[in-house]
Amino acid sequence: MSTARPREHPDLAELLAGIRPADPAAERAAREHQDRLTKPRGSLGELEELSVRLAGLAGAVPPPVPAAPAVAVFVGDHGVHAQGVSPWPQEVTGQMVANFLAGGAVVNALAREAGAAVVVVDVGMSAQAGAAVDAAVAAGPAAGAGGDDAGATGGPTRLLRRRVRAGTGDITVEPAMTTDEALAAIGVGAEVAAGLIRDGHDLLVTGDMGIANTTPSAALIALLLAADPATVTGRGTGIDDETLDRKIAVIRRAIARAAEAGVTAADPVGALAAVGGLEHAATVGFLLAAAGARVPVVLDGVIACSSALVAAALAPDVVAALVAGHRSVEPGASAALRALGLVPLLDLGMRLGEGSGGVLAVPVVRAAARVLAEVATFDGAGVTDKQRAD
Amino acid sequence: MSTARPREHPDLAELLAGIRPADPAAERAAREHQDRLTKPRGSLGELEELSVRLAGLAGAVPPPVPAAPAVAVFVGDHGVHAQGVSPWPQEVTGQMVANFLAGGAVVNALAREAGAAVVVVDVGMSAQAGAAVDAAVAAGPAAGAGGDDAGATGGPTRLLRRRVRAGTGDITVEPAMTTDEALAAIGVGAEVAAGLIRDGHDLLVTGDMGIANTTPSAALIALLLAADPATVTGRGTGIDDETLDRKIAVIRRAIARAAEAGVTAADPVGALAAVGGLEHAATVGFLLAAAGARVPVVLDGVIACSSALVAAALAPDVVAALVAGHRSVEPGASAALRALGLVPLLDLGMRLGEGSGGVLAVPVVRAAARVLAEVATFDGAGVTDKQRAD
Repeated sequence: MSTARPREHPDLAELLAGIRPADPAAERAAREHQDRLTKPRGSLGELEELSVRLAGLAGAVPPPVPAAPAVAVFVGDHGVHAQGVSPWPQEVTGQMVANFLAGGAVVNALAREAGAAVVVVDVGMSAQAGAAVDAAVAAGPAAGAGGDDAGATGGPTRLLRRRVRAGTGDITVEPAMTTDEALAAIGVGAEVAAGLIRDGHDLLVTGDMGIANTTPSAALIALLLAADPATVTGRGTGIDDETLDRKIAVIRRAIARAAEAGVTAADPVGALAAVGGLEHAATVGFLLAAAGARVPVVLDGVIACSSALVAAALAPDVVAALVAGHRSVEPGASAALRALGLVPLLDLGMRLGEGSGGVLAVPVVRAAARVLAEVATFDGAGVTDKQRAD
Repeated sequence: MSTARPREHPDLAELLAGIRPADPAAERAAREHQDRLTKPRGSLGELEELSVRLAGLAGAVPPPVPAAPAVAVFVGDHGVHAQGVSPWPQEVTGQMVANFLAGGAVVNALAREAGAAVVVVDVGMSAQAGAAVDAAVAAGPAAGAGGDDAGATGGPTRLLRRRVRAGTGDITVEPAMTTDEALAAIGVGAEVAAGLIRDGHDLLVTGDMGIANTTPSAALIALLLAADPATVTGRGTGIDDETLDRKIAVIRRAIARAAEAGVTAADPVGALAAVGGLEHAATVGFLLAAAGARVPVVLDGVIACSSALVAAALAPDVVAALVAGHRSVEPGASAALRALGLVPLLDLGMRLGEGSGGVLAVPVVRAAARVLAEVATFDGAGVTDKQRAD
């Protein structure tokens, strides 16, 4: 496999060139403002840290309070499913896409709570899954799917047909995709982010769907962090010990195959093409474009965390735009967040994907911005500041 | 001090008589319904557990999705402030009440995010604090207080004047209050909860304000759990090592004094009167009345957790109505939550009080109810359920 250096790929190079670090002056001003607000210094813990990061990204104090969040659910199928790494049949990918479009999945319910729009992006469904979705769309919403107010907030769920390839290759025996396909999928994700931002969305959330996609996630994390696959591989949506052992062995084989082909951690796009997934690649582009536009983007679970490692390897400053929404049960997610220096906002033992943990964290992100924007200062409110005497 | 047995106090006895356990059939039905929803079983972690508890409280599947949350901020002053347990002057209690009424405090900003109403209840401010609030109310909102949309959601912040006593006695030398005063403050809290529920609020949140009030909280927790004060006493809003040592010594003296007066953990109202606070007592009544009305109530920090211990000692089934909003940095809060068997939803290193951590958790509570109410089943959405083959 040929390596993919950014400078050899004009579109990617342009995406990366737009990403700049956080504004240190705005961060400092945000910290100083936090200390003037009518509360003991530091008493809001991580909420204060998050507000400082949002200010650094926006280059403004207060940073804007996000008013229009949107979650993009990138969908792909996985050749490695043939290796028996998941108990779910591959047809579920397409069935769940139909469920998203009917407003009946968990991410839809949680997006309604957060007031977030949902877009579903077919970047790599299998041909069968695609056909099943087409049939479901033609037949109308499934009976019993969705709540009474399905789609009431954020508008109905949209499907974007941006398929780069119908599922990946089996990473134990071949690359997931070609470098060109990886770059094309990155381009899809970037285009989706840009479109959402053009439409007025000011807080993005990653989501994913793809039966077996925690396997390429763990492979990417193991490859990029040079970690033992056994330490970063989890039970995904829930597998038994025997399947977990098989999954770890599968990931070892995939990484060995990639190494034989000359792929290293120094070549993030090559790693993505070798052991990743189409939804992973699209998420990388989504993160890069959001960071370039200085729009915060909330990471969901292990798929997003593995994609964030790729994005950060391409452009370390992307991290300034990233918010870790929740701590996935998958051990690889925690390893990736540690490497990225991100602290998750929620830790509720979730392991669903879809963007569910990301959208659940949206009100916390808004709350952090609101504190800087709305809370009175000691001087303004006439409250005695004991801290002055410190 | 005379002990306060519920049966000797008709109003309290009536409050306690209304509290019944969770409905086990509804809990079972909620678990079964969770397992039919289009997601891997258990993949929503604590969100599923919370949804089951909400169903058990409501006696219905799905439980209602809370539409109108309200936070009650109970305010009191503390004679023990004279012992130097806080670096903040006592005047800040009244200044912060004025800040609440102007919409400029953290709890106001976070309540706007959660769409929650805020009521401030003077159950025990000092005379000076009360006079300062009156002057501030007469002068109109403080300049610079509140955001542009202060009070836009949930209506303007209301002040309820229900002062039972102008601050507590210094618990190192005398009881905080008489048993009758403790019962009266419990009655105030119960009346506030009943009024909010009558007004259509379907999710309550505890809040508190009172300079030095983490000291009576730690004393209550140490007394009721028979714990060493050093293990349940924290730095409150931020005190140095010397003040912390003094605070622990103060709590030891207060508990020793109460023990000499014959107060034991078997007499929760006696403990409240001996070493508690007026906002603590009101919070006890608030929790008991919410539980009696089968309305969920989110606990904020250590003041609420200590009050919940008192409430649970009076009526163990009150716990069915309680949701731990966040894990306060105060060690006593974690000790109390462990004793109550509650897992906090958020853990963001917060230690502010006011109800801030409680309102921040409101969207998570609503999300848990939404999942049961709105997510499609495998059958309904035509999604293959691998779990059937298990």
